[in-house]
Amino acid sequence: MVAESTVGTNILDLARDHNVAIDAPCSGNASCGKCRVKLVSGKLESQQTMHITDEEFAEGWRLACTSKVTDSDAEILVPDIASAYRSRMKVADLSSGNELKLFYQSMEDLCDADISFKNEFFLLRLDLPEPSLEDTMPDNERLTWGIERATGVPHQKVSLTFHALKKLAKTLRDSDFHIQCVIEKNDLGIKVWNVLPEDENVKITGLAIDIGTTTVSGVLVDLRNGSILQRASTGNGQIRYGADVINRIIESVKPGGAKKLQDAVIKETINPMIAEMCKAEKMPVSWIYRICVAGNTTMNHLFLGVDANPVRMEPFIPSFFHTEAVRATDLKLYAASDAKVAIAPNIGSYVGGDITAGVLSSTIWARDTLSLFIDLGTNGEIVFGNSDFLMSCACSAGPAFEGGDISCGMRATDGAIEACHIDKKSMEPTFRIVGAVDQKPIGLCGSGLIDVIAELFRCGIINSKGKFVREGRRVRRDENGMGSYVIEFKENAASVKDIEINEVDIDNFIRAKGAIFSAINIMLSTLDMDVTMIDDIYVAGGIGSGINMKNAVMIGMLPDVELSKFHYIGNSSLTGAYAILCSKKAAEKVDTIARNMTYMELSTNPYYMDEFVGACFLPHTNEKLFPSVAKALKEES
Amino acid sequence: MVAESTVGTNILDLARDHNVAIDAPCSGNASCGKCRVKLVSGKLESQQTMHITDEEFAEGWRLACTSKVTDSDAEILVPDIASAYRSRMKVADLSSGNELKLFYQSMEDLCDADISFKNEFFLLRLDLPEPSLEDTMPDNERLTWGIERATGVPHQKVSLTFHALKKLAKTLRDSDFHIQCVIEKNDLGIKVWNVLPEDENVKITGLAIDIGTTTVSGVLVDLRNGSILQRASTGNGQIRYGADVINRIIESVKPGGAKKLQDAVIKETINPMIAEMCKAEKMPVSWIYRICVAGNTTMNHLFLGVDANPVRMEPFIPSFFHTEAVRATDLKLYAASDAKVAIAPNIGSYVGGDITAGVLSSTIWARDTLSLFIDLGTNGEIVFGNSDFLMSCACSAGPAFEGGDISCGMRATDGAIEACHIDKKSMEPTFRIVGAVDQKPIGLCGSGLIDVIAELFRCGIINSKGKFVREGRRVRRDENGMGSYVIEFKENAASVKDIEINEVDIDNFIRAKGAIFSAINIMLSTLDMDVTMIDDIYVAGGIGSGINMKNAVMIGMLPDVELSKFHYIGNSSLTGAYAILCSKKAAEKVDTIARNMTYMELSTNPYYMDEFVGACFLPHTNEKLFPSVAKALKEES
Repeated sequence: MVAESTVGTNILDLARDHNVAIDAPCSGNASCGKCRVKLVSGKLESQQTMHITDEEFAEGWRLACTSKVTDSDAEILVPDIASAYRSRMKVADLSSGNELKLFYQSMEDLCDADISFKNEFFLLRLDLPEPSLEDTMPDNERLTWGIERATGVPHQKVSLTFHALKKLAKTLRDSDFHIQCVIEKNDLGIKVWNVLPEDENVKITGLAIDIGTTTVSGVLVDLRNGSILQRASTGNGQIRYGADVINRIIESVKPGGAKKLQDAVIKETINPMIAEMCKAEKMPVSWIYRICVAGNTTMNHLFLGVDANPVRMEPFIPSFFHTEAVRATDLKLYAASDAKVAIAPNIGSYVGGDITAGVLSSTIWARDTLSLFIDLGTNGEIVFGNSDFLMSCACSAGPAFEGGDISCGMRATDGAIEACHIDKKSMEPTFRIVGAVDQKPIGLCGSGLIDVIAELFRCGIINSKGKFVREGRRVRRDENGMGSYVIEFKENAASVKDIEINEVDIDNFIRAKGAIFSAINIMLSTLDMDVTMIDDIYVAGGIGSGINMKNAVMIGMLPDVELSKFHYIGNSSLTGAYAILCSKKAAEKVDTIARNMTYMELSTNPYYMDEFVGACFLPHTNEKLFPSVAKALKEES
Repeated sequence: MVAESTVGTNILDLARDHNVAIDAPCSGNASCGKCRVKLVSGKLESQQTMHITDEEFAEGWRLACTSKVTDSDAEILVPDIASAYRSRMKVADLSSGNELKLFYQSMEDLCDADISFKNEFFLLRLDLPEPSLEDTMPDNERLTWGIERATGVPHQKVSLTFHALKKLAKTLRDSDFHIQCVIEKNDLGIKVWNVLPEDENVKITGLAIDIGTTTVSGVLVDLRNGSILQRASTGNGQIRYGADVINRIIESVKPGGAKKLQDAVIKETINPMIAEMCKAEKMPVSWIYRICVAGNTTMNHLFLGVDANPVRMEPFIPSFFHTEAVRATDLKLYAASDAKVAIAPNIGSYVGGDITAGVLSSTIWARDTLSLFIDLGTNGEIVFGNSDFLMSCACSAGPAFEGGDISCGMRATDGAIEACHIDKKSMEPTFRIVGAVDQKPIGLCGSGLIDVIAELFRCGIINSKGKFVREGRRVRRDENGMGSYVIEFKENAASVKDIEINEVDIDNFIRAKGAIFSAINIMLSTLDMDVTMIDDIYVAGGIGSGINMKNAVMIGMLPDVELSKFHYIGNSSLTGAYAILCSKKAAEKVDTIARNMTYMELSTNPYYMDEFVGACFLPHTNEKLFPSVAKALKEES
């Protein structure tokens, strides 16, 4: 970061102003300790907090949020550990991780719901008669009559987008009136989106995007056959305005804030992602003719630049559940300017389009059997039901599943420990890291956290309250007696300090998993049901490429049912957006799902707090709820 | 003009690059002599042409198109005489010149055609119930249900523009859910264009624009009652790329040319005009909800940025006659971004939307009697017919009617001599000038030219070939014997030289009027008719605030019929655009007119050249065509 500034400027503000992403989950309140920067030369006026040890302070480590410029020549390093959160681009190759496509196709096997691939985009080849002094029809009528001859749709019902009209004269003449047209055909008639020379290698594409609070993912799709051309995932550029939706809304309400938050997600996050995918696909962005977005209610409000404050303030009213008003040009999204931006419908302030899209892709709505759908994100959402009913609720899990609120936490990107085993006797860990073969670990992502905590518990290193009860080379105590466990020493890590999980981290994670489990339990109780009645459990979220369900049960995060009932369905929000993008029936279906889904408010439920407290143990205060865990622990000892 | 440039840069190019309008009707070919600039200090490499005398050259006068930078410190003055053509803004006050409105209203008296004022925009007041924890409907549904209750239109058929959606949350809460909505109601349902607080002084406006090759005029209209809120007129910024459509098209075909020509008319001409009108009306430009544009085929192609080259090249094919594809946002026009841009339909490459709109407003299509419609512009267009048929033709009159190709010619703006009388004996003129009482003359506009030439002819100062045959203080001969007449000496003029009309000017004007009259005559002959069968003649165009019909007949420009049959209808293109903007019926009618109007190609007509040559006399070689002129001349002598 090279930036000029006046004395007294806060470093985090300075970084935000210059679009340098510094991880700041607490939005600059000095409470999370994540916004570490290193003073290389010069001076800063910094407050030392509990997050920086004396030794670290001496080395130059500071929290950006508590540091101010005093010296215009100060050189500050934003370290690599922060880059795990930095907005970045990763276009995955097509050979890896095809689960999105496969899962969608398997829906047709799973159920007879008619949401098969079918949309209204076609490529039409036309050979038009050349004009002459005897045939002086204008170009656009020549085209619409040609389309009538080719398709039978009356020429009066064929309309051109402005983009097509603008290109028409030159395209016709450059290619001697032999052209290809990108058309959309529906009950109203035909819309001509583009005209291209006959020999051009044309693609008709659409874009599905999941806007997560932490991560934004997208797929570029061939609308003619539904195949996925490119995938990309990147950090949500809004992260520097806070880790959770509440902090983001607060920032958005400040003067110019809505524009800043919108720019952070569109200009800094989504548009670069689109540009990268289109570059890889060797096509202009104007070949994207439809966009479908799924995100939680706050995310889709901030995405549109719509005032999100009423979402947060009682009585919690969104501007919209469903809207048809948005086109790419309204948001300056990189796409055909007329491209419709479909937004997966919200059902309330705390259950948004990510959930309706996720439920769509889970297909739980198509079966008689009872299913539980769990989305593990910064907000945890639970949906339970079948083809007769769907009930939803939401709980605030915090950012722990995506690595927030955890000292060594990170998103499931390169360098993240995503799976871990600990030897009970030696207490030595073995782990699997996201990325290349020689990738050194940087931190723990959600699935890694589940494994580490479950393994520490199984090995008796921590007790059911999450406190350390064994000693060893990797177990430490600080001056206050707080225990921690070193997963990897900094010599072997791509990290500036040891990768270490402490009792505060474990406590944060236990509260996150407790929120999820208690929400599940309250919902089932309200319906007078229990876990044995669940036929299938669909777990969604960006928690990692895989989640060890046995360990998730071990720590009491998910109900203790047969492991075969669990299905990890990855980013179901993106899968749902993909389905809505490709299938008109899916688009109709998700609206039906949204209309029919009921919402249960947990925060006002008199039993919720007791349930939550009971769930803040490993696995739970009520051991009867986790018989298989009790059995496993007995076998271990 | 303060501009840095490298040695060798052409001054006209330099001025174009820096958006300094220098009048250049011939587009820089050194043939028109209009692009005079004065070297104040420093040096220029200039070619002296026949347009600059030795004396003038010594004074520093140069043609911009034949001058190059040799000295980076050169100071060049773009003189006031050029400013008559410079893009400028003139918002006329409402008290003056209400003919537009009156003429439109009189249509209903003239005929029973149902194109009365009626459109689909309304202002709706709504008092919505405030949300609560028991009533958590999202804002947009609260609005659409409220509209259903107020109008009976089902809420599913009410849609919001993105602009309305974006403002909704804040507007509702700022005004305690008591709001006003700008709605458009049609057969399909209701579209909500805007939401505003209940106490705001709301306007619902539309914009009608006539894009002339030389002049752009517009009116800002209250869509609720059709009243004209503001009027404006300004030079078409494209003028520096050539005076006529052919030169403009040639410029537009160069790399980046289409964008340049589009910017010249939108960014430099129309948008500033809109901004000025909205400022005067104290309203944001986003309160313009509909736009209607009338212009000739080339003008509306360049306006849209559509390739205009095929319009000029055989077989002369426009991209469109009619298009519904355009919205304000596509052109970055200052208006509500979704505002539809209706374009008066073309019927061919040389009869465009200005004529269909003009014919609409003339109402000749609504009567049984036979009418002739004449639009005097850079292109002359003639339409003849009645409620049974309409036949059109076009001729290239050149820019003479708007002051082009005439050494002292100018548009009908401040300083233009618009009417003239010459005393037969003394040969001294008296004249009327456009502008303030103390306005000094700058040049001659079209109506002034007609008067001057008619008076010179009536007084026997020029003969029927346009050559000077009397001598006097105001009549001069140059070294080649070419005669000229001084209308005003430079001491009394706001001009850098005497306001003088010479035989070349008169010849240019005679060819322009000859083109018009021969087109009329050929068309009538083709239909086996003659001038006596004409019931009414409607003369349109920006030739001046009034046209002396007797003088127009005197010089053989218009047919020799009773003066009571002539009707000067001013800018009929703008009037038509206004009608289309305000009246759905008018919009339908102009399409019917366009579809039914036939086009007669003059350039391939075997009699046209003979007719044209015959018409290039004052009044005509065939005196029998102008019996009243012969009679008047006889009385004079």
